[in-house]
Amino acid sequence: MTIHDWSTGPYPARVRIAVAEKKLRSRINFVSVDLTKGEHKKPAFLAKNYSGTLPVLELDDGTFIAECTAITEYLDGLDGSPTLTGGTPRETGLIHMMSKRAELELLDAISVYFHHATPGLGPHVEIYQNAEWGFRQRDKALRGMAYFNGVLKKQPFIAGEFFSMADITVIGGLIFAGLVKLEVPAEYEALHAWYARMNERPSVKNRVTMSEPA
Amino acid sequence: MTIHDWSTGPYPARVRIAVAEKKLRSRINFVSVDLTKGEHKKPAFLAKNYSGTLPVLELDDGTFIAECTAITEYLDGLDGSPTLTGGTPRETGLIHMMSKRAELELLDAISVYFHHATPGLGPHVEIYQNAEWGFRQRDKALRGMAYFNGVLKKQPFIAGEFFSMADITVIGGLIFAGLVKLEVPAEYEALHAWYARMNERPSVKNRVTMSEPA
Ligand SMILES: N[C@@H](CCC(=O)N[C@@H](CS)C(=O)NCC(=O)O)C(=O)O
Ligand SMILES: N[C@@H](CCC(=O)N[C@@H](CS)C(=O)NCC(=O)O)C(=O)O
Repeated sequence: MTIHDWSTGPYPARVRIAVAEKKLRSRINFVSVDLTKGEHKKPAFLAKNYSGTLPVLELDDGTFIAECTAITEYLDGLDGSPTLTGGTPRETGLIHMMSKRAELELLDAISVYFHHATPGLGPHVEIYQNAEWGFRQRDKALRGMAYFNGVLKKQPFIAGEFFSMADITVIGGLIFAGLVKLEVPAEYEALHAWYARMNERPSVKNRVTMSEPA
Repeated sequence: MTIHDWSTGPYPARVRIAVAEKKLRSRINFVSVDLTKGEHKKPAFLAKNYSGTLPVLELDDGTFIAECTAITEYLDGLDGSPTLTGGTPRETGLIHMMSKRAELELLDAISVYFHHATPGLGPHVEIYQNAEWGFRQRDKALRGMAYFNGVLKKQPFIAGEFFSMADITVIGGLIFAGLVKLEVPAEYEALHAWYARMNERPSVKNRVTMSEPA
């Protein structure tokens, strides 16, 4: 399988973490798409993913699977025993809810802030910006941090008692927050403690270098 | 189980269709949340779903599951044989990708258009609007219609050879398009033909009345 991505991107990080958690590194070939040159908005890439975003997983039969959630579902099911997306309907439902909530209230909000209220990937890529909307999304993300801090006061992981895709999505959010220098307020202690624990996981720690030649 | 929703809403429609497809109607109790009064933005409802949107599924143990995708995953797994979210990893990956794409490029875009560039739910609910962003999203949705028309020229259903959650999400998009009078251009024949077929399914046809007392 091939993953088309960008080593330091927050969304690519989500899939890289899933790959490592599922011990699939040896089956993946990484291809870099240069976001700063806007390669992801050119026809060759849009044919792989209509939405023009990374990452995209290319299967050996030529099928393209875009969207982090979809790629994670695919990878998690490969060995017949999903660990990241839940075993029972209740687990599955809660993981999907919390992962989606982490996109809506944190990761995607920060992404919109980055692309609309900061220089983003530069003027040749950001051909339309709506700064007011971008700043609203930044404020939404700050509220999202408070929300997830509250969640983590009550349970050890984002969707409950074990590590899942929902944790990975919040990790993506905090990676993006770091890139755009949106600090997690110090008083969100539960969120800070959880993130420190997450950063100890090899899947999280080694995500950027995982695509480099050994 | 209880579903908190609004009978004519396009997102509630997604879950209602899933309920009917899975023959779960008799196990569900429907509770209406009045969107026009902004009930979904009040503390009592926000405690059920932080994001303040419908629908929300309440399990008998008191767990709340928000987000259509998450609810559909839950319902689809209940009988141990998922039919809406895929059987193999490849099916699951493609269904999640296409459903997410239908949100990004069609349904959610129309929702933003509705809430930001039309009166939406009225001034007491739409306390912030960004019309320019709303119109951009409308145009994105029109491009999305062209995209899904292209998909349906090549295959009978949105994610391939069978009906799935991805079809349901596009149906949600076209229901919302109808509500805001965003017409699907006549030349998108494959999309029109598919939608006519979808509207023949009892799950789609009877979605609004399904919550009424028999
Ligand atoms: N919904 C997508 C979003 C992916 C995404 O936004 N990826 C970033 C890379 S970190 C991207 O491609 N951004 C470029 C752009 O939006 O111009 C997913 O979950 O995979
Ligand atoms: N991401 C949510 C979106 C749900 C949604 O937007 N629902 C509509 C009802 S049709 C809503 O609650 N809108 C009210 C609002 O956004 O103010 C999902 O997939 O369930």
